[in-house]
Amino acid sequence: VTDLVERLAVIVGPSNVLVGDDIPEELTHDEALTASPQVPAAVVRPDSAAEVAAVVALAAELGLAVTARGSGTGLSGACVPSPGGLLVSFERMAAILELDLDNHVAVVQPGVTLDQLDEATAEVGLVYPVFPGESSASLGGNVATNAGGMRAIKYGVTRHQVLGLEAVTGTGEIIRTGGRFVKSSNAYDLTQLIVGSEGTLALVTEATLRLYPRPPHVATVLAPFATLAAATGATPAIVGQGIGPLLVEYIDGLAMGGIVAHAGLDLGVAVAVREQAQAYLVVVIEQRRQDRLAEDVEELAVLLAELGALDVYVLPDHAGTQLIEAREKAFWAAKAAGADDIVDVVVPRSAMAAYITRVNAMASATASLITGCGHVGDGNVHLSVFQPDPEVRHGLVHDMIVAGVAMGGAVSGEHGLGIEKREIFLELADPAQLVLMRQIKVAFDPAGILNPEVAR
Amino acid sequence: VTDLVERLAVIVGPSNVLVGDDIPEELTHDEALTASPQVPAAVVRPDSAAEVAAVVALAAELGLAVTARGSGTGLSGACVPSPGGLLVSFERMAAILELDLDNHVAVVQPGVTLDQLDEATAEVGLVYPVFPGESSASLGGNVATNAGGMRAIKYGVTRHQVLGLEAVTGTGEIIRTGGRFVKSSNAYDLTQLIVGSEGTLALVTEATLRLYPRPPHVATVLAPFATLAAATGATPAIVGQGIGPLLVEYIDGLAMGGIVAHAGLDLGVAVAVREQAQAYLVVVIEQRRQDRLAEDVEELAVLLAELGALDVYVLPDHAGTQLIEAREKAFWAAKAAGADDIVDVVVPRSAMAAYITRVNAMASATASLITGCGHVGDGNVHLSVFQPDPEVRHGLVHDMIVAGVAMGGAVSGEHGLGIEKREIFLELADPAQLVLMRQIKVAFDPAGILNPEVAR
Repeated sequence: VTDLVERLAVIVGPSNVLVGDDIPEELTHDEALTASPQVPAAVVRPDSAAEVAAVVALAAELGLAVTARGSGTGLSGACVPSPGGLLVSFERMAAILELDLDNHVAVVQPGVTLDQLDEATAEVGLVYPVFPGESSASLGGNVATNAGGMRAIKYGVTRHQVLGLEAVTGTGEIIRTGGRFVKSSNAYDLTQLIVGSEGTLALVTEATLRLYPRPPHVATVLAPFATLAAATGATPAIVGQGIGPLLVEYIDGLAMGGIVAHAGLDLGVAVAVREQAQAYLVVVIEQRRQDRLAEDVEELAVLLAELGALDVYVLPDHAGTQLIEAREKAFWAAKAAGADDIVDVVVPRSAMAAYITRVNAMASATASLITGCGHVGDGNVHLSVFQPDPEVRHGLVHDMIVAGVAMGGAVSGEHGLGIEKREIFLELADPAQLVLMRQIKVAFDPAGILNPEVAR
Repeated sequence: VTDLVERLAVIVGPSNVLVGDDIPEELTHDEALTASPQVPAAVVRPDSAAEVAAVVALAAELGLAVTARGSGTGLSGACVPSPGGLLVSFERMAAILELDLDNHVAVVQPGVTLDQLDEATAEVGLVYPVFPGESSASLGGNVATNAGGMRAIKYGVTRHQVLGLEAVTGTGEIIRTGGRFVKSSNAYDLTQLIVGSEGTLALVTEATLRLYPRPPHVATVLAPFATLAAATGATPAIVGQGIGPLLVEYIDGLAMGGIVAHAGLDLGVAVAVREQAQAYLVVVIEQRRQDRLAEDVEELAVLLAELGALDVYVLPDHAGTQLIEAREKAFWAAKAAGADDIVDVVVPRSAMAAYITRVNAMASATASLITGCGHVGDGNVHLSVFQPDPEVRHGLVHDMIVAGVAMGGAVSGEHGLGIEKREIFLELADPAQLVLMRQIKVAFDPAGILNPEVAR
């Protein structure tokens, strides 16, 4: 270990190599509920792509695992270190290198947080539109998991915003992909291959991201429905109306109770309505003109009533903002309520109601409680599972994911596989595609050192 | 050959195997100006993924090249057959399998044309938004080249619309990727890897595509500028205004003359203005409400005048439609005028004016003529090169592409590499990335039979 520390210190400086008791506890885990913390042999804090490349080259030489870490806000254990390996923390690579106003592009280092980028882009009237719900998350982590979030219905997910990358492969080589353009047709798109690969193909050291004009006016509409099927069934018409909502969320009655209580919110929903409402739709609209926003809200309210909403509430600005912020913290509300696990399956949005009905039957059969909310506009379900018995819970979560995939969905909508969903992904994946993926992995990382806990 | 024909006939039926003089001339080439036609050993017309898989498996067994062909409208020679190989024509796999109105998704076979899909989606108020300029193009070809086109500034390119694929790899295995959802984070994204791979990794047998509400109201605004730099320099402000234009095109004075003459158009631009105008911007706006369209056009016209437009013309519906249609046929206008080659470099849009100035200097230095138009909103330049001497022309085109890449661009914005740009791509590519790409190629196609003319 002394030899290793010395060689790392030559690369990043002695103060940027941490071992033993100097490793903060928070670096041993992310926010996943069921992944066990692990202590790496050393934490390394590089401040340039060249330093990252040298660290990876050394790790390849020594056969040490390398795990990348941004803010550690992930929910699947994808940045939990390998015991005996290196943890590369990007806390010193946290600069917005450029806001390019001519091309509407931001060039960022991986440690930049969504908050930081949002503040900088707001000053110039632009926005980076991906909001996965935790704004202290890093862009490097967002790229690694292909982070989604509530606004995906309007803007797409991280993959749609990443125009180019600088990254270090498993051999310690630095590659630069893409550029400041939306379009190109130049052989295989390595940018898109690295996005979502959870640090198993390369460590991202710089990302070129697409920015958009920031619409100044925003309104939040809340519509309680008698049944979940009625709420989710309203979505195609809402999207088809052409207003272009920024987000369409469903929140079930229980989850809404938790969110509202956790945030101390009063949304003004009458008790009689609340008692009937098994599910809520939250629709947010943004516009560049206040007059159009008012018109759109009016049109939307009429449509929601036609679609069977029990009532329609146009929330005052502060309440709308609070509700969305509280919704973004739904994970924390669930955690505070004692949730034992979470599931983020994605299904075709038309299958959402049937999927949740199915899942509720599974909950009954196992004496478990499942509550949730989700991005109904894009079929991404977020369910909290309350079941203290680990064996029962494991079987239930397994069956919930199997059911989602069987309905045309996928294991993870946006959290990534990490170490938590690796096994079930392998169980459900097409063997032919696993063979392709393993060969891709070998191409980028012949020594198999990049996040080996996830890529098995 | 008799043995081969018999074995193919067992798979697809005798009437769907063509050899010798029965092979139509049009199947020996696409629309690339400089690629030589080639006659394959046989043309095969499968009608299912299973038949495609059986054909590819046979080709792998025999070591025969396999080239996929949709409508043959490509501009880079990517579907020119290999001499002695098989050409898989998708003319019999041309069905829209489903328009899923709940999920806003179309499921299509590769031979479906953009025209066909546009007609079907229009009937239900939806739109598939990629318009690369040739609406007889097939969706399979669009996926293979990651087709872009004028509307990329609003909707992105083909890659952003492809939610899932069914495809046959080089071993004859059928894989299914993605699904009817926008979002997922499930290991490596094979969908995105196949998009743009020009038939070198897999043959696409089905695509799941994202649809959008079709805005009913459209207006076209034409603004002549004294210089190209003034025209392209106006773009960030136009995009930043937040109107969300459907397209922002520039057309240089010469190209506009060609387009207008070729289409027999009268745009009503005064002679005095025309004489001063070295470049035109064409901006198209779409809206779901006529009143908002009128307001947006007014705001845009004011902005264009502030940005230095010599005049601003709001074209009557028929003239606007004709201009866009004529612009879409710019390639044919250039071909009719005797263009010897075309270039579709993409550069950061802020570099467009400097790039074209640079290219014009190259034209002067070689006594060539370069004229063009392009998607200024996304930095994609389309230049026609008039230079009859093949050697001079080859050097000029080479230097034009090198200059684009040096300015932060890429070899091809949307046509793909094909056989025309393969060499220069290899010359300019990062060797480390070529190594990765070659290993990916081997993973999908160990025998190296899929479009070997392109993947070398």
